[in-house]
Amino acid sequence: SGINTYAHLPHDRCLIDKNLTFDVGIIGIPYDSSVSYRPGARFGPQAIRAASQRQFSYRGFNFRAGINPYQQWAKVIDCGDVPVTPMDSSLALKMMTAAFDNLLSRESAYEGSSMPPRLVSLGGDHSIILPIIRNLYKVYGPITVLHFDSHLDTWSPEKYPSYWQSEASEFNHGSMLWMAKEEGLLSEHNIHAGLRTRLSGTDWSDYLEDDHLGFHRIESDEILKIGLDGIIGKIRRLLPKNSPVYISVDIDVLDPSAAPGTGTVEVGGWLTRELVYILRSLEDVFIVGADVVEVSPPFDQSEITALAASQIVYELVTSMVK
Amino acid sequence: SGINTYAHLPHDRCLIDKNLTFDVGIIGIPYDSSVSYRPGARFGPQAIRAASQRQFSYRGFNFRAGINPYQQWAKVIDCGDVPVTPMDSSLALKMMTAAFDNLLSRESAYEGSSMPPRLVSLGGDHSIILPIIRNLYKVYGPITVLHFDSHLDTWSPEKYPSYWQSEASEFNHGSMLWMAKEEGLLSEHNIHAGLRTRLSGTDWSDYLEDDHLGFHRIESDEILKIGLDGIIGKIRRLLPKNSPVYISVDIDVLDPSAAPGTGTVEVGGWLTRELVYILRSLEDVFIVGADVVEVSPPFDQSEITALAASQIVYELVTSMVK
Amino acid sequence: SGINTYAHLPHDRCLIDKNLTFDVGIIGIPYDSSVSYRPGARFGPQAIRAASQRQFSYRGFNFRAGINPYQQWAKVIDCGDVPVTPMDSSLALKMMTAAFDNLLSRESAYEGSSMPPRLVSLGGDHSIILPIIRNLYKVYGPITVLHFDSHLDTWSPEKYPSYWQSEASEFNHGSMLWMAKEEGLLSEHNIHAGLRTRLSGTDWSDYLEDDHLGFHRIESDEILKIGLDGIIGKIRRLLPKNSPVYISVDIDVLDPSAAPGTGTVEVGGWLTRELVYILRSLEDVFIVGADVVEVSPPFDQSEITALAASQIVYELVTSMVK
Amino acid sequence: SGINTYAHLPHDRCLIDKNLTFDVGIIGIPYDSSVSYRPGARFGPQAIRAASQRQFSYRGFNFRAGINPYQQWAKVIDCGDVPVTPMDSSLALKMMTAAFDNLLSRESAYEGSSMPPRLVSLGGDHSIILPIIRNLYKVYGPITVLHFDSHLDTWSPEKYPSYWQSEASEFNHGSMLWMAKEEGLLSEHNIHAGLRTRLSGTDWSDYLEDDHLGFHRIESDEILKIGLDGIIGKIRRLLPKNSPVYISVDIDVLDPSAAPGTGTVEVGGWLTRELVYILRSLEDVFIVGADVVEVSPPFDQSEITALAASQIVYELVTSMVK
Amino acid sequence: SGINTYAHLPHDRCLIDKNLTFDVGIIGIPYDSSVSYRPGARFGPQAIRAASQRQFSYRGFNFRAGINPYQQWAKVIDCGDVPVTPMDSSLALKMMTAAFDNLLSRESAYEGSSMPPRLVSLGGDHSIILPIIRNLYKVYGPITVLHFDSHLDTWSPEKYPSYWQSEASEFNHGSMLWMAKEEGLLSEHNIHAGLRTRLSGTDWSDYLEDDHLGFHRIESDEILKIGLDGIIGKIRRLLPKNSPVYISVDIDVLDPSAAPGTGTVEVGGWLTRELVYILRSLEDVFIVGADVVEVSPPFDQSEITALAASQIVYELVTSMVK
Amino acid sequence: SGINTYAHLPHDRCLIDKNLTFDVGIIGIPYDSSVSYRPGARFGPQAIRAASQRQFSYRGFNFRAGINPYQQWAKVIDCGDVPVTPMDSSLALKMMTAAFDNLLSRESAYEGSSMPPRLVSLGGDHSIILPIIRNLYKVYGPITVLHFDSHLDTWSPEKYPSYWQSEASEFNHGSMLWMAKEEGLLSEHNIHAGLRTRLSGTDWSDYLEDDHLGFHRIESDEILKIGLDGIIGKIRRLLPKNSPVYISVDIDVLDPSAAPGTGTVEVGGWLTRELVYILRSLEDVFIVGADVVEVSPPFDQSEITALAASQIVYELVTSMVK
Ligand SMILES: [Mn+2]
Ligand SMILES: [Mn+2]
Ligand SMILES: [Mn+2]
Ligand SMILES: [Mn+2]
Ligand SMILES: [Mn+2]
Ligand SMILES: [Mn+2]
Ligand SMILES: [Mn+2]
Ligand SMILES: [Mn+2]
Ligand SMILES: [Mn+2]
Ligand SMILES: [Mn+2]
Ligand SMILES: [Mn+2]
Ligand SMILES: [Mn+2]
Repeated sequence: SGINTYAHLPHDRCLIDKNLTFDVGIIGIPYDSSVSYRPGARFGPQAIRAASQRQFSYRGFNFRAGINPYQQWAKVIDCGDVPVTPMDSSLALKMMTAAFDNLLSRESAYEGSSMPPRLVSLGGDHSIILPIIRNLYKVYGPITVLHFDSHLDTWSPEKYPSYWQSEASEFNHGSMLWMAKEEGLLSEHNIHAGLRTRLSGTDWSDYLEDDHLGFHRIESDEILKIGLDGIIGKIRRLLPKNSPVYISVDIDVLDPSAAPGTGTVEVGGWLTRELVYILRSLEDVFIVGADVVEVSPPFDQSEITALAASQIVYELVTSMVK
Repeated sequence: SGINTYAHLPHDRCLIDKNLTFDVGIIGIPYDSSVSYRPGARFGPQAIRAASQRQFSYRGFNFRAGINPYQQWAKVIDCGDVPVTPMDSSLALKMMTAAFDNLLSRESAYEGSSMPPRLVSLGGDHSIILPIIRNLYKVYGPITVLHFDSHLDTWSPEKYPSYWQSEASEFNHGSMLWMAKEEGLLSEHNIHAGLRTRLSGTDWSDYLEDDHLGFHRIESDEILKIGLDGIIGKIRRLLPKNSPVYISVDIDVLDPSAAPGTGTVEVGGWLTRELVYILRSLEDVFIVGADVVEVSPPFDQSEITALAASQIVYELVTSMVK
Repeated sequence: SGINTYAHLPHDRCLIDKNLTFDVGIIGIPYDSSVSYRPGARFGPQAIRAASQRQFSYRGFNFRAGINPYQQWAKVIDCGDVPVTPMDSSLALKMMTAAFDNLLSRESAYEGSSMPPRLVSLGGDHSIILPIIRNLYKVYGPITVLHFDSHLDTWSPEKYPSYWQSEASEFNHGSMLWMAKEEGLLSEHNIHAGLRTRLSGTDWSDYLEDDHLGFHRIESDEILKIGLDGIIGKIRRLLPKNSPVYISVDIDVLDPSAAPGTGTVEVGGWLTRELVYILRSLEDVFIVGADVVEVSPPFDQSEITALAASQIVYELVTSMVK
Repeated sequence: SGINTYAHLPHDRCLIDKNLTFDVGIIGIPYDSSVSYRPGARFGPQAIRAASQRQFSYRGFNFRAGINPYQQWAKVIDCGDVPVTPMDSSLALKMMTAAFDNLLSRESAYEGSSMPPRLVSLGGDHSIILPIIRNLYKVYGPITVLHFDSHLDTWSPEKYPSYWQSEASEFNHGSMLWMAKEEGLLSEHNIHAGLRTRLSGTDWSDYLEDDHLGFHRIESDEILKIGLDGIIGKIRRLLPKNSPVYISVDIDVLDPSAAPGTGTVEVGGWLTRELVYILRSLEDVFIVGADVVEVSPPFDQSEITALAASQIVYELVTSMVK
Repeated sequence: SGINTYAHLPHDRCLIDKNLTFDVGIIGIPYDSSVSYRPGARFGPQAIRAASQRQFSYRGFNFRAGINPYQQWAKVIDCGDVPVTPMDSSLALKMMTAAFDNLLSRESAYEGSSMPPRLVSLGGDHSIILPIIRNLYKVYGPITVLHFDSHLDTWSPEKYPSYWQSEASEFNHGSMLWMAKEEGLLSEHNIHAGLRTRLSGTDWSDYLEDDHLGFHRIESDEILKIGLDGIIGKIRRLLPKNSPVYISVDIDVLDPSAAPGTGTVEVGGWLTRELVYILRSLEDVFIVGADVVEVSPPFDQSEITALAASQIVYELVTSMVK
Repeated sequence: SGINTYAHLPHDRCLIDKNLTFDVGIIGIPYDSSVSYRPGARFGPQAIRAASQRQFSYRGFNFRAGINPYQQWAKVIDCGDVPVTPMDSSLALKMMTAAFDNLLSRESAYEGSSMPPRLVSLGGDHSIILPIIRNLYKVYGPITVLHFDSHLDTWSPEKYPSYWQSEASEFNHGSMLWMAKEEGLLSEHNIHAGLRTRLSGTDWSDYLEDDHLGFHRIESDEILKIGLDGIIGKIRRLLPKNSPVYISVDIDVLDPSAAPGTGTVEVGGWLTRELVYILRSLEDVFIVGADVVEVSPPFDQSEITALAASQIVYELVTSMVK
């Protein structure tokens, strides 16, 4: 009808309508005040929705999966955006935390489901997963994070050298996984996939600290050595069975040629077809939530980053519904 | 809530909900299959909505008019888009005609109003006004068009030289005012404002034919001779009082520096501040409908064309409501 | 001399000069009125020509093929563009059909050739191949289509849901292969290569219908499983020997990173080097015509889509001439 | 030498070298965490420096003023940027405040000057002027602000409706002049020039509150009524003589056609030539500091916004030095 | 026919076909190796031709002039481009000089004309006018230049400070008018219009030297003081009657908002409508040649600079033909 | 501090401060006057520096190499740019030659080093390596060039057909390796990697001439046949041990999707991750100098070309320092 929802899905104001039930909700988090370099991801949700306009439920059959995720058992809706201030990161964190507390205390639409609805969050910068994981932990206990990113995002806040420190600036898009682990929200079997960041100092201490936080690492270049199947095998071996998994896709895991529209670009990443192929090979995972973050439209070109993100959302919903 | 409606106005599916009443409706017409050169205006409605996201009813007071158009007596809503095929202009014309027939047979929300709701249409190419005027004529009788454009748009179809002619290709964005006049839908006091198009042949025959169609012409360059007040005075003198006026704004009336995102650009146009000033000086006109057309996002830069269009919509709504 | 022809080739007005003979003609079809989403491909011919300006016959030796296609036995010329209206798809279809009827009734320049000149068409949207195949059929009988595309383009028109149907809207860039097959113009051994489109409904019915139309399918992701050589082997096995083949390259077969400038983008496609490699491995095919379509300059960046298309044209001409 | 300083001026690290003296310092404030809409102004200083690379002191004679500001009595340098966190606006405010406290406690290079060096700040978002004015007040007492902007920037923080309020979010780019006035830092004779913002609610209360804060208002449209000379006359009459004036140029005072690269665009602004003409007519004002803010390079096109800003800096330095 | 010539005019290879006669020739000079800052103007001719594609002789009536310049007495053609090396400015100068010597020794097509054909040159950087004026001088004697530019272009080469000097680097786009005057090619009544460049040193010496070279100066800002009619009056008074005039339009005379696609941008210029209005008011001048230079497509946006240039060419041809 | 140096390294004016010692210098050469097609590489150094701003020595550990190149034994600095005229290629060649003569006659900072400092040059077009190699030859004798490029760059100048020849135009970005070899500056074991250029004429004569010049060739497509490890093996076998190697990276070796911002684009190149992987596998080579050239910012998108170049510089410095 001209009003952009994700894939023309029905829109409900999930946060306000307390009696609403649903199974999978697409929800935007237009927040980018915790980035270290280029902002703009606050417009990510709007851009991903615009890039999804060639998706319709009547032509939504996913040939890779053999289902149409919008016409299965699940009620899939677009929840709109979480309200969040750009000017005070502490307040923003509270707002996002309250929103997900609200959403994860709902019932699913599908009869017999004992889980709350599952959410695919559209970032926003990567810091938004801290409030999400805090609330998932309350429902499911420790969460295993499958983290696609060129960066570690497990830097302790003091690794960001600056003149002054503050509690608010600890909440940033490079430290939220460190915070999540410190708070006890994560399992011991988390995975980074697609890494290629420069590290602090003159030795491997960032990696050592990351080990202590319970993360396995798959570097971007490994695909050149063990191939795509090697990457998939590694993830499948490392990922715990039957325990709650959260899939977080920082779009900067992709190569800049495929995803220029992001804030902290690292050359030498994966191709979109490779990432989609990996995601499709993980269908039997117990996914309790997912996101696509760091899509920054002001730096995008011809929508290619938003289109990649839109496809990833589609694949994530497919996996949740299958 | 993250779902783009014009100015965050409430959205209703006006075409489907037959019992819906409203006073002013913003409606998109994503149609550009009747253009002679660069297409893309089918994405105009979406772009104008996106560019209006800094408008909210709580901060909508128009300092130029002294009212907040979203908090006056009128119920102003976003009707979404008219469904329209891009692949068959004859069929598209039928679809648009039916849609406006539908919309103009409604009652207004405001008690005591004897008019149907008034619509501000977001183009789409300029041909969309033919179905609009056909339906306005059914309600109001002959319409006076105040036509802001760098082009005449009163060319008879045979002035588009080509190898073959066809009925369908007669419906194009340069001939629809000729067709409207031929069909008897227009008054004798229509006005073109902002003209600067090249003409056919080697003499003034285009202008002569335009005279016969009942149009007055104000060329773009006149602002350099008689000033902005001169332009306004001329329009006010020419425009009939107390008879139904339709205001059509082809965004290419603006200079390319202010509105690069359009299909048939003509250098040397008016500045946005001049157009807004003119529009604001015409508040006492009996406006029965209005549009902003030919916004072509693929050729826009930094949203400036869409922002201009969004402002013009706001000014048109202000005039309708005042 | 400053006037852009493809690769600085000599320009003749092939449609008008009835006595002109040539062997390979590059011809533009600036038509995009049958697209379902983003228009702009009408400017494809102009953009491909501009992107070919670094090609000259004196430096045209193709190291992949071992010949200089512009200095072999063949007279290769730029025929300019087919005149075609954007405003009436039925009329446009007639205009294009007449143009190819005209061109394919010529004699070749090369003595002893019993074929008419062969044409490499620059789209325009993909619907342009219907009039081409209609005329090729008249010369050669049933044609085998090797169809590089992310989409099937064999959808029956009624699979495009809309409020009204019409005959004119049946002619669109997703149904022309269905129409061609229905009209009996195609062989039973056609191939889609590079598919990754979403399908209709909740099952494989699109694929089943495609089977019935005589198409084999190679999905984009197969390159991740069987490698580039696997793809080539599959095409070579499927393609009939010694029968007339038409090669149609929808530029959206490429990944959006390599070809952002197109209308209906699908993430996860092939790299340009892969497509060129495939094309070069098919030199012994009896090519009776070819095209590159769906290049949409308004969405291109730094000419990369047009450059890819320009290279593909060069490779296609090489194959025709070798 | 290839290292971009503003206008190839010598660079000193003013904040670190405590013994450094200078007369006019260009200083960047790469901070944009207090914006309400599009971020990106943190890259403003870098873009303005890049756009100034065609300025050299040996070809720096300002024909409008009759002097070369880089070869007069004053030592003009580029101080580099203030370090400032993007992730905690409260901390950022402290960092900026300390930086200007530091800078304004220096001595000038020019013998006999009793003033500290004067600074031209490159924003950054408009909120950066709060720490600047706080420190100017400490040196000069109440400051008169000549505020070029399409927005009031005197909104009390509670006029930004949101779900929760917080102290940190009060510090934003629309409220800092309200805060400055509340803190007693401003005179009673401040001027807004170029206004065209929508206002809160349904009446003139924003303007009334602005009156109470000691501001005069010149709307953008007045140039259409009283002309450029009228605007200049008005400013000159309103501006107090012989008292310290701070000139703040929010680049959004310009029309979007001239300055697309900013965060909160308002159509219908002044042309660059008009703004420069106004600035040049105010040479006899006692300028104690100045800025150009809200230049957001991700939204700029062909550098035109940064070029305008670079020119404005040049004119401001000229006025300070003359 | 799809092959871009200026305004779809017939194309002849004027330099090669020695027997060709014509009255007005459009000729491209794809040379930009004498620029001091951003190159790219070598693609100017191609861009101006592309931007002229909406011009056709059958719809070419100029309403400002009352004629259709393409259907008057004159044979107007597109001569293509002058061949010119980008890698050796001395050689390039020789190539351009020979080309114009060739062209200006032809006869006109119009019977009774005693003049050679007149050329409208599409730059290229501004240095291209030196070989043009050298050859015009040979035909007409001293030439009066009406020079629209934001820059003087009468700087003696030694005003470009550098480590080494050379004869070749004297030929640059800021000194060619100095060279032309030194060589005795110009009259004493030349005019700069639209100036706003910074000057050398600390005084008016650039202007003084310009005086000695026989130039009058009209600064850009004068339009704010004496209005558009004032500018026109000044030019008309200064321009000698009945003596040969060359009109050179450096596109940077326009404001960056109207002409971002140029190499050495100066903010605060004229609007396109103002320049066109000035050009149209000079119809009775004896124009022996003209150009539009410094259009640099890599920095253009949405073709607006090329469109402005294309319009200026149209107006110049109109004046030549009228 | 806001002043862009490469990777925030300390800046010294290496050419002017004759007593300065250092081990690795990053130096810009803003010269593009020897290109055959699109200029713009003169802004390459500035763009590469801007794209390196997310590099800091405190977070500079290279996980691929296991060292932090900025905190090893070596003093790494940014030398700024070489001054060079754009308007006279002969003079420019002299200026560049003198600059490298100057730089390569310095002593290293590292005690015990008998080599002069090593330089990583930021182009600029590819012709800049002629003056570099001339000076390296004076220090080290014949140099082996490892040349990453889609083009041969060993064309003898007469292979550039044109109307006139000249000595200055022999110095161009396609012939400098031919000139270097002719002058005896190169070894017999040079390597081209990534070739995919069209060749002259109708046979392999370009390759034959290249053989005679002592070059081995690795075509771009070989990666599709022998894989990335095959490419690396081939380079390692061909590259002489213990003799001085110069690594030259023409950014057009990358695919246009990864490096659109260059002048002479060839589709079908390597991915950035492949090039980085190759570079990292060559750490034991005796590198005496290196460059990244042909980065042309006006044609770049979202900085992706400059980011790739910035990463390559980082890898080259890593190899030099390891
Ligand atoms: Mn991340
Ligand atoms: Mn990341
Ligand atoms: Mn119109
Ligand atoms: Mn129009
Ligand atoms: Mn297709
Ligand atoms: Mn397709
Ligand atoms: Mn402001
Ligand atoms: Mn503002
Ligand atoms: Mn000039
Ligand atoms: Mn100029
Ligand atoms: Mn090269
Ligand atoms: Mn190359």
